[in-house]
Amino acid sequence: MAKVLTSKEENYAQWYNDLVLKSGLAENSAVRGCMVIKPYGYAIWEKMQEELNRMFKATGHENAYFPLFIPKSFFSREAKHVEGFAKECAVVTHYRLKTDKVNGGLIVDPEAKLEEELIVRPTSETIIWNTYKNWIQSYRDLPILINQWANVVRWEMRTRLFLRTTEFLWQEGHTAHATKKEAEEETMQMINVYAEFSEKFLGIPALIGNKTESEKFAGAIEPLTIEALMQDGKALQAGTSHFLGQNFAKAFDVQFTNKEGKLDYVWATSWGMTTRMIGALIMAHSDNNGLVLPPRIAPIQVVIVPIYKGGDEFPPIAEAATRIKTQLTALGISVKFDDRDTHKPGWKFAEYELKGVPVRIAIGPRDIENGNVELARRDTLEKKVLPQEGIATYIKDLLDEIQENVYQKALNFRIENTHRVDTWEELVDVLDNKGGFALAHWDGTTESEDRIKETKATIRCLLLDPEKEEGRCIVSGKPSNQRVVIAKAY
Amino acid sequence: MAKVLTSKEENYAQWYNDLVLKSGLAENSAVRGCMVIKPYGYAIWEKMQEELNRMFKATGHENAYFPLFIPKSFFSREAKHVEGFAKECAVVTHYRLKTDKVNGGLIVDPEAKLEEELIVRPTSETIIWNTYKNWIQSYRDLPILINQWANVVRWEMRTRLFLRTTEFLWQEGHTAHATKKEAEEETMQMINVYAEFSEKFLGIPALIGNKTESEKFAGAIEPLTIEALMQDGKALQAGTSHFLGQNFAKAFDVQFTNKEGKLDYVWATSWGMTTRMIGALIMAHSDNNGLVLPPRIAPIQVVIVPIYKGGDEFPPIAEAATRIKTQLTALGISVKFDDRDTHKPGWKFAEYELKGVPVRIAIGPRDIENGNVELARRDTLEKKVLPQEGIATYIKDLLDEIQENVYQKALNFRIENTHRVDTWEELVDVLDNKGGFALAHWDGTTESEDRIKETKATIRCLLLDPEKEEGRCIVSGKPSNQRVVIAKAY
Repeated sequence: MAKVLTSKEENYAQWYNDLVLKSGLAENSAVRGCMVIKPYGYAIWEKMQEELNRMFKATGHENAYFPLFIPKSFFSREAKHVEGFAKECAVVTHYRLKTDKVNGGLIVDPEAKLEEELIVRPTSETIIWNTYKNWIQSYRDLPILINQWANVVRWEMRTRLFLRTTEFLWQEGHTAHATKKEAEEETMQMINVYAEFSEKFLGIPALIGNKTESEKFAGAIEPLTIEALMQDGKALQAGTSHFLGQNFAKAFDVQFTNKEGKLDYVWATSWGMTTRMIGALIMAHSDNNGLVLPPRIAPIQVVIVPIYKGGDEFPPIAEAATRIKTQLTALGISVKFDDRDTHKPGWKFAEYELKGVPVRIAIGPRDIENGNVELARRDTLEKKVLPQEGIATYIKDLLDEIQENVYQKALNFRIENTHRVDTWEELVDVLDNKGGFALAHWDGTTESEDRIKETKATIRCLLLDPEKEEGRCIVSGKPSNQRVVIAKAY
Repeated sequence: MAKVLTSKEENYAQWYNDLVLKSGLAENSAVRGCMVIKPYGYAIWEKMQEELNRMFKATGHENAYFPLFIPKSFFSREAKHVEGFAKECAVVTHYRLKTDKVNGGLIVDPEAKLEEELIVRPTSETIIWNTYKNWIQSYRDLPILINQWANVVRWEMRTRLFLRTTEFLWQEGHTAHATKKEAEEETMQMINVYAEFSEKFLGIPALIGNKTESEKFAGAIEPLTIEALMQDGKALQAGTSHFLGQNFAKAFDVQFTNKEGKLDYVWATSWGMTTRMIGALIMAHSDNNGLVLPPRIAPIQVVIVPIYKGGDEFPPIAEAATRIKTQLTALGISVKFDDRDTHKPGWKFAEYELKGVPVRIAIGPRDIENGNVELARRDTLEKKVLPQEGIATYIKDLLDEIQENVYQKALNFRIENTHRVDTWEELVDVLDNKGGFALAHWDGTTESEDRIKETKATIRCLLLDPEKEEGRCIVSGKPSNQRVVIAKAY
C-alpha cells in the first residue's frame, strides 16, 4: 500500500501538514488563516476541554462568558498591552450591508458606521477587568476565579494548521485577588496544572520556567511558561500563566477595601492553553504511519476490525467483536467496531494507524476457531495473538502501559536532545546541526539575548528550579549563576 | 427582608430583568447589545450543552468547528438567505490598528483594508456548505451529521438579556443527505430531540409545528419550530429545525454521484438552539422570590444551611451536614454546604430562593438533638421536618417529583391559557385581555396572515398533528380545515 504521508525525514513541515489533513483533524478554510476543525480533531479538543475543566473546577474555578468584541479605546488603557495585541487584529467598523443597486451583490452601508470601532478579541483582559470593576468593592468579593472557553482572533501573516491560525480556540483564566502573594500562588498553581495536564494526559514532558523580559506577554509582570520539545528539535510554548500585578486593575481602576479598611488595587493573573496543543500533540509523538495518540486523549481507544471472506464467516466474528466491545465499554474504554463492508481490512488497518488509535484488534475465522484475537499496539507497532478470554482487562492495563510508554519515549527524546553548551560555537553547533534544547549561561542582559536571537533561536525560559552553577555568559563572557534554555521554536 | 425583585404583576419585563441580574445569571457589557454570562448563568448553559450533546451523539452526530468569519460574497449566493441575514451584521473591514501620532490613542490603519469584507457569522450555512463541497463526491460520503457549538452575531437594535442579544451562544447542526426523504426525517428527528429536551429537561411543554411562509428561516423550505408559552401569556420560539432542500447545495454547487451513478445535488438540514432558552427557562417557571429551576438543569440541586449561634453549636451541625452531603453526592446529586460565617441564615435562605435551588436543608441545634433536618422545596415553598436517616434517598425521589411538578404546572398553565377562537372579536379579546395561545381557523393566505399581524400577534405555527376540523378563517370567512396557533411572541 502506498504511503500517504511525506516522511518526516524528507520534509518535516510537509509531513505535519499531510498528517493533519489526511488523518482528518483539520483543513484550511475559504477564510485566509482560519481553519476548519474536523470532527476527529474536534473530538481531541473536547477530550482536552473535559480534562482541563475537571482540573480547573478542582482548583476552585468557574466558567463564564464575556463579549467577543472589545471597544477600541480599551486597548489603549494598558500601555504595554496595546503594543502587544491591538495592532494585528480584526476590526469591525460597520454593522450593516446593503444591496448594491448598480452592480448587484452586497456592499457595506456607509451609513452604518460604528462610532467607535470594535476589535474581535485577541485576548480578554481588558473587557474582563472592565467588568470586574463592577463586581469588586471589598476583600469579601475576592478572589474571583473565572475561566472562559472562547474563540480569539490575531491577524497572523503566516499561518499553519493548529500551530498558528488567525482564529483559534482556547481557554483563558482571569483571576482577581486581594494580595500579591495569593495572585503569585495562583499563577504558580495554574502553570503546574498545565504541566500536569501536558505530562499525564498528553504524554508531553514540560519544562516550567520564566520568560525573559523581551519574550513576555504584553502587560504581564511575571510570566510562567511550559516549554515542550518537538521531534524535529524545535521548542513549542505549550501553555502560559501570567502574574499581572496591579497593571490591569490600575488601567481599569479596580480598587477594593482590604481587611484593614484601606483602598488598594486588585491583583491579577491570566492563563491560557489553545488548540495549538493539538499541534504539539501531533509533533511530539507521531510517526510516518500517522498519528500516535496517548490513550487518555484518544477519541477512539480501541478499534475492532473483522476479517472474513464469505458472508457466513461474519456472524461468529461479529458476535465475538460485540462481546469484547461490551466488556471494554463496561470498563470505560471507548471502542469502535468497524463492520463496514465497503472497505477492506488492509485499508482499515492503515486508516486507524493514520488516526493513531492506540489498540487495534483483528478477528478472523481462525481466531474464532481458536478463541483468539490479534492485537496490535499503535505506539510500538507490535502484534500479538491473545486469547479472547480476559482480553478486556488485558487491554485496560495495556492502555495504561501505552500511555506511560508514549510519555517515556518523549521524555527520553528530550533528555537525548538537551545539550549543555559552554561556548558560542557549541551553541551554534546545537542549533544548526543537532536541534533540541541548549542549556547555556547567560548574563541576563538584553544585548546578549539579542545576539542569541540572531541565530533565530530564543531563550525559551529560565527554569524555575535551576541547578545553581557558576559560569560565564556564552555571548559576553560575563559571570552567570544559572543556565537558561535556548532553542529554535514554533 | 425587603423584596429584591419587582413583582411580575407590577411589571413583568422589569421582574425579568431584575431576576437575571440579581440571581447572578448575566448582565449587560460595555459593548452595546452584548452580554456577560456570569458563572451561575454559564453553569446552566453547560448543563444544557451536556444534555444536548448526549442527545446529539446518541442520534449519530459529531461536533466540529468552522470559521467565525464568512466572506461577504458567500451571502449573495443563496438569494433568500441574504435577505434574511446579511443585512444587520458585524462587518470586519480592516486587519490592523496603528498609533495615532497626532492625537495619541489608536486608529484604524487605512492601509490594512481587506480586499473583501468579512462578516462575523450570523449563522453558518454558507461557510459550511462551501466546506462540504470538498467533502462530498459520492453517496458513500453521506450522510454528514455535524453540529457546532459557537458564538454568533446579529446586529439587533433592541436587546434584552438572553432573549435578544447582539452576540449569543448556540449550537447549529448542519447535515447533508443523499435523499430528500432522509433529510426530511432528520429535520423531524431533531425537532423531536428539541421537544424532548425542552419537556424532560427544562420542564417546558413544547408545541411542534410548521412555520408559515412569511415567518420561516431565510433559505429554508420546511421549517419546524417548537413554541413555548411564557407566564405573561406570550409565546417564545424555543428551537428550530429546517429542511433546506437542495438550496444550499445548488448555491455552493455541492453535487454527488448517487447509487444509480447519476449526479445529484445534496439535501440539507440545519437546526439550532440558543442561550435564549435560558430566558425561556426563567420565564416559564420563576416567581416573585426568584428563579425556579427544574432539578435536572439546576447547577446546585441541594443547598445545606447551618443554623447556629455559638461556635460550639457548629461542629455537630457541620458533621451532620457533611455526612448528608456525602450521601447525596454518592447518588449523583450536586450539593452545596454553605458554611460561610459572613452571612446570616435568613440571607442565605433568600439568596438560594433567588437562585432557584430546588431543595434547601436547614440544620440547627434542635435538629441535631432530634436527628432531624428542616427541608424546603423551592417549587412549592413547602417546609417539612424529616429524620436525617434516609434523607438522601428521600431527596433523590423528591428531585424527580419536583422535576415533574414544575413541568405539570407549566403544562396546566398552557392548557388554561389556550383558547379556541371562532371570530375576529374573540381573537382580539384573547390577545388584548387574556394572553396565551389562540387556536383559530386561517385560510392559508398571506393577506389574512398580514391582517393578523396588525394585532402585533403572529401565527406561531401550524401544528404537525392537528385535529382536523372544518371551519372558517377568522379573517376572511373562507373555508379552512385546521386551526393554527396565534399569539404575541418574544
